[in-house]
Amino acid sequence: MNSEEMSFCPHFHAAVELIGKRWTGAILRELMHGSVRFSDLRAAVPGLSDRLLSERLKELEAAGVVERRVFAETPVRIEYHLTARGRDLETVVAAVSRWAQRWVAPAASAAR
Amino acid sequence: MNSEEMSFCPHFHAAVELIGKRWTGAILRELMHGSVRFSDLRAAVPGLSDRLLSERLKELEAAGVVERRVFAETPVRIEYHLTARGRDLETVVAAVSRWAQRWVAPAASAAR
Repeated sequence: MNSEEMSFCPHFHAAVELIGKRWTGAILRELMHGSVRFSDLRAAVPGLSDRLLSERLKELEAAGVVERRVFAETPVRIEYHLTARGRDLETVVAAVSRWAQRWVAPAASAAR
Repeated sequence: MNSEEMSFCPHFHAAVELIGKRWTGAILRELMHGSVRFSDLRAAVPGLSDRLLSERLKELEAAGVVERRVFAETPVRIEYHLTARGRDLETVVAAVSRWAQRWVAPAASAAR
């Protein structure tokens, strides 16, 4: 391990704070599983309000992780898609899922 | 992808909310890089206060990710170590680091 790796990394910090923000992980996971509509995302994440989902999607759009597509139909159709940068978060979501299956799920079962 | 993977996963959600809590990612990264003392952790993460570091370490201890070891010396020595559950988060930290190097670091360079 060199000294570069030892020191605080602002890029790592920015990434983990973006992904780890309340509800953002769950929203990213749903987008990866193919949800593209606001109503589907909201329905898929229990406890998430319209206001917070809207806020999180705007943050992810600002971070270049999500692209908002507007289709000029009647009524207007709006979809949310992961960009290349967003799709590349799949390895992070997979690593968290693996850890959760290994360490969180058994603890939850034992507590029942 | 089966329907199990499609639906909201409370274990994933619990994991990402734990790891993603403000400062927690940076603290875990420092613990993985070998810091064990409170003062070293605090010094390694710019902007982190004593109060918040103490709070985060207690949360990680409660989650079984960190173990607090007290050595009966004079003055008393206290160390923080990752448990097996905590060390297994290495894959998550590595995935976030890789993503940050790929997508956050170049953007930061371009903005300079």
